[in-house]
Amino acid sequence: PLQVQRYLYGALIMLVAVHVIGTFGYHLLTGGRYTWFDCFYMTFITVATIGYGEIIEMTQNPAARMFTVFIGILGAGTLSFLFSTVTVTLVESDLNGTLRRR
Amino acid sequence: PLQVQRYLYGALIMLVAVHVIGTFGYHLLTGGRYTWFDCFYMTFITVATIGYGEIIEMTQNPAARMFTVFIGILGAGTLSFLFSTVTVTLVESDLNGTLRRR
Amino acid sequence: PLQVQRYLYGALIMLVAVHVIGTFGYHLLTGGRYTWFDCFYMTFITVATIGYGEIIEMTQNPAARMFTVFIGILGAGTLSFLFSTVTVTLVESDLNGTLRRR
Amino acid sequence: PLQVQRYLYGALIMLVAVHVIGTFGYHLLTGGRYTWFDCFYMTFITVATIGYGEIIEMTQNPAARMFTVFIGILGAGTLSFLFSTVTVTLVESDLNGTLRRR
Ligand SMILES: [K+]
Ligand SMILES: [K+]
Repeated sequence: PLQVQRYLYGALIMLVAVHVIGTFGYHLLTGGRYTWFDCFYMTFITVATIGYGEIIEMTQNPAARMFTVFIGILGAGTLSFLFSTVTVTLVESDLNGTLRRR
Repeated sequence: PLQVQRYLYGALIMLVAVHVIGTFGYHLLTGGRYTWFDCFYMTFITVATIGYGEIIEMTQNPAARMFTVFIGILGAGTLSFLFSTVTVTLVESDLNGTLRRR
Repeated sequence: PLQVQRYLYGALIMLVAVHVIGTFGYHLLTGGRYTWFDCFYMTFITVATIGYGEIIEMTQNPAARMFTVFIGILGAGTLSFLFSTVTVTLVESDLNGTLRRR
Repeated sequence: PLQVQRYLYGALIMLVAVHVIGTFGYHLLTGGRYTWFDCFYMTFITVATIGYGEIIEMTQNPAARMFTVFIGILGAGTLSFLFSTVTVTLVESDLNGTLRRR
């Protein structure tokens, strides 16, 4: 259980880090044409896989799209891992109760 | 198992609450320019991470986008948690059968 | 394990049913202005939560959007349930191996 | 555990394969009108279910949309399976610790 808890905290820290990296990265790759909040928002809708659309115009900006692939793999991957650790934490606490009753 | 069932019901209640908050919030933040149903629809496609696009025009409305981040974290987070509790409920009932046969 | 397998098959049948209902529903609600394939495609990108955009124009069609909420809940819900049963099937087969070795 | 690890590696290989197939497929189905990277990007946002929009214009290209359904089922299905194997790997390692302590 301790191991899973460490994974859970690690995933949360990674998620915050991905948002910081994403916000700075989009700001840099668009030459500051978008507000810091828009760069954060683009990162968020990517990591959460909501994907309303490319908040940051990227049709002529392959570097920004490559960065999006990087943020997507890292961010959405970490988010899925986070939910896995939540499931395992629930299984663990549930299983302990079941085994104790036997 | 009782604990997980309580979590499951809690998640369902939270999901309904998020939709009520989202519908009211978008209505307020857009000065009533959208129908109640459109505000609900915007909340739904966000929480379900379908994200067809921003139903509510928000390019010049950072407050509405911040609210979207809030609804996304709360709603999509709760939805994932709900599916975790469903998985754990299935594991539990399956495991009970397996252990009983031993 | 038999119970979980039945859930898995049930979810697959439900997914096919949702696509049939979605295809017919969108065709009906748009007065046949879209091809059968476009109606199926709209259903698919909703159930899979890909959500490129509203393939079917629905800005002035609240009935079609209400139908989308219905398809989204039923379809995406069933898909998530399907993945839960896959996880449980893997846990079960894995656990059997672990317990056998003890 | 060995079985699950094999599934995990298999899913990773399949994910890479889907991206190769997707990139070539979109290039072919659009007559080379899009860059290789755009074809890869369209595959990626489909498999990750981010779905910003149809990067590849497909309104008049039902073959490309049928290919998208194929890539979506194969790719997003494999990705979900991958996350299932990660969850099971965590459950397994966690369970081993719990049972050892009993
Ligand atoms: K999406
Ligand atoms: K979208």
